[in-house]
Amino acid sequence: MECDILVVGSGVLGLSSAYHLKLRNPDSRVVVIDRSSGPGQGNSAKSEGGLRNVFTSEANYLLTDSTIDWFSHLEKDLGYDVKLHYIGYLWLYSERQYNGLKSTLEAIQKWGAELRTYEKEGLKRMVPHLVTDLEGDEEAELLDIESIHKGVLGVKCGCIDTDALVRSYEAEFLKLGGELMYSTDAKKLILRPEEELGIPGEPFVWQESRISGAETSRGEIRADTTVLATGVWSETLLDPLGIDALMRAKKRQIFVFKDSRLGGLLEVEGFNKYSVMPLTILPKAGILFRPEVTEGSIWLACADELGRGYGLEEDPQPEANYYTDEIYHVLVKYFPCFRDIRPANMWAGQYAVNGYDGMPVITPVPGMIYTGAASGSGIMKCDALGRIVASLYAGEEKAELYGGQSFNVSSLGVEDRNVEREKFII
Amino acid sequence: MECDILVVGSGVLGLSSAYHLKLRNPDSRVVVIDRSSGPGQGNSAKSEGGLRNVFTSEANYLLTDSTIDWFSHLEKDLGYDVKLHYIGYLWLYSERQYNGLKSTLEAIQKWGAELRTYEKEGLKRMVPHLVTDLEGDEEAELLDIESIHKGVLGVKCGCIDTDALVRSYEAEFLKLGGELMYSTDAKKLILRPEEELGIPGEPFVWQESRISGAETSRGEIRADTTVLATGVWSETLLDPLGIDALMRAKKRQIFVFKDSRLGGLLEVEGFNKYSVMPLTILPKAGILFRPEVTEGSIWLACADELGRGYGLEEDPQPEANYYTDEIYHVLVKYFPCFRDIRPANMWAGQYAVNGYDGMPVITPVPGMIYTGAASGSGIMKCDALGRIVASLYAGEEKAELYGGQSFNVSSLGVEDRNVEREKFII
Repeated sequence: MECDILVVGSGVLGLSSAYHLKLRNPDSRVVVIDRSSGPGQGNSAKSEGGLRNVFTSEANYLLTDSTIDWFSHLEKDLGYDVKLHYIGYLWLYSERQYNGLKSTLEAIQKWGAELRTYEKEGLKRMVPHLVTDLEGDEEAELLDIESIHKGVLGVKCGCIDTDALVRSYEAEFLKLGGELMYSTDAKKLILRPEEELGIPGEPFVWQESRISGAETSRGEIRADTTVLATGVWSETLLDPLGIDALMRAKKRQIFVFKDSRLGGLLEVEGFNKYSVMPLTILPKAGILFRPEVTEGSIWLACADELGRGYGLEEDPQPEANYYTDEIYHVLVKYFPCFRDIRPANMWAGQYAVNGYDGMPVITPVPGMIYTGAASGSGIMKCDALGRIVASLYAGEEKAELYGGQSFNVSSLGVEDRNVEREKFII
Repeated sequence: MECDILVVGSGVLGLSSAYHLKLRNPDSRVVVIDRSSGPGQGNSAKSEGGLRNVFTSEANYLLTDSTIDWFSHLEKDLGYDVKLHYIGYLWLYSERQYNGLKSTLEAIQKWGAELRTYEKEGLKRMVPHLVTDLEGDEEAELLDIESIHKGVLGVKCGCIDTDALVRSYEAEFLKLGGELMYSTDAKKLILRPEEELGIPGEPFVWQESRISGAETSRGEIRADTTVLATGVWSETLLDPLGIDALMRAKKRQIFVFKDSRLGGLLEVEGFNKYSVMPLTILPKAGILFRPEVTEGSIWLACADELGRGYGLEEDPQPEANYYTDEIYHVLVKYFPCFRDIRPANMWAGQYAVNGYDGMPVITPVPGMIYTGAASGSGIMKCDALGRIVASLYAGEEKAELYGGQSFNVSSLGVEDRNVEREKFII
């Protein structure tokens, strides 16, 4: 089988790339393959589905802000029910943390992200379930948990149904005449010499060579250009060719709570039009939770750092004791409503963490474009990243993001990488 | 066992770090451990032993130039016979290549590296064994091999006996009262909370934690600071903690030739005082060779790129057919004296390749300093990198390199990394 563009991976980055490539190259045969039986069944499906335009890197602001606008467009103009809820992101900070972040928060606002700051007293009034003052609490001292000083709300932030999102790209891609092949596993990328001599052993090191498709469970698929969008699995395909995937796989877990005792978190006035708590990030240990507005539950996660190992897992499993040992004691200090409640459901996925600068990578390799290393925020950047892939394919210096903003294509590449290290990875 | 500083790895980066740390902290207990029975028996021993101050990144110029001066100091002033030979590096370029590199070569000279350019006619006279003109050669056309247009000689370049080098650091370190423990394998790094509570399961994610030594084959070694200098093996120790080693392991092979028919390469006037060919880099496929002046042999290697896989190997093996299939046909076009000669010896080692920017990494982690990702040029930067490790330990912003040049310590770190991507990786 032959095609012009072969996209490997039907996660949100693969489908967004495929859609924008097909949109701009209507006469090209664009084929998406995935080993799963449907779209987005890798880590796209495991995500918390959060989205925010609040990042310390301006590039990330541009990527997310335009993608969030695209999500609104999907709902309002294209009629996809992707369950976009602007519930906001609420960072709760201790005094020490807030003072250390002041200049960062100012910079973030300068390039356009809307932030609202809440004083402790205001937070107390708005969120009766929240304990802000922990002075004199011996257990809190033992856990080294600080009192809350302020809250910072990212306004153009919230959540989306990632499954509905990938299906919207899939539907639009199919409308354009794009082709999908599920249950098709890419076994390896094919490296071929630019000029084949027909000698066994090609390509030799003295030959110019390029990626020219993939060997799959359904046979070889040759392509002029291959787009690799296989997330944490990218190293499996890139390592044999000596291409660095520039990311390591790290487990992230989601714990779901459905308990009437947490109902108060779904009845909070003032932060958003849904009258629920925003996605809330505690001042300690990277713990965060958000209401799942549609099903009336709470999704909780923890952005652990040092000590959480790297390593690709085929089927990462959630750890029940992770909630009880690592998260619970801190959580109930700030939100005692969680006391004695156990998660009703849990799952785990993996982030493709770029340890170098925390930014996504879109880089050309002969015959190929690699898009990945999204570091846990690929969904909220998916539309911008798909456009950048399409611009790189077209040989353009600048990509036009949804809404008209311009983005230097080479900035996310390896050769002329030009992005600031992202510090707000959660 | 307890110490102030535990250096894991007695390769050239580990021993250089240990020496400079002990020199600057004479009252501290500095212990180097290595699983081998002697120093530098990992990839330091497998190296080609080349050294050059010619790089496209100015930072690399500073790191290598000062380290090469240190090597001279070792021989002249400290009396170590490290077999430093300034034979030069000779890059042979086609016209197309040379024109593409002009501005790069100018920049390289601007910051201090001495380059000499040779016209084709001059090269022909000096190196009768070299074939420069390949027009009309059908096989050369098939192999897409271009004629040689110019040669560029890096003057402050050459080679060193890496075993003698690591032993010089070892000797100086011991003189200062440093301690060495060979045949001591670091099984894992120990992560401990800053404030231990005595609860099983520590450290929890809500605790500040730090590296506090290593579990070794000879028991636990606790250290205030651990310096990790384990080269390609770094990921084995860092992955479980979720610290990105920022490098992938890639095999490099050395083929050794001892044949009287190659004697002409050891009798070439004009490039250096030893009257031998410089380390010579062909215009094609990253093939390079150098005379090994001491033993009168030729060492040959190939800096292959796309297609040479990444992956840590415990005991990488050379591939005999790699020379015959991949290197030979190109080599004999430029240097027919290699015709029908087979390597007398061969071995393989691994580079720790930093796929982001090709530069080394020296970065702090709580309780630890990681030095590595040297991308195949660690030996020629070893002294500068050791000084930077010692400055980072001392909390200094700038390190003073041998000769007095200053280097920003944070530039090689992850947080505030500030180096240009290196393009001359061979």
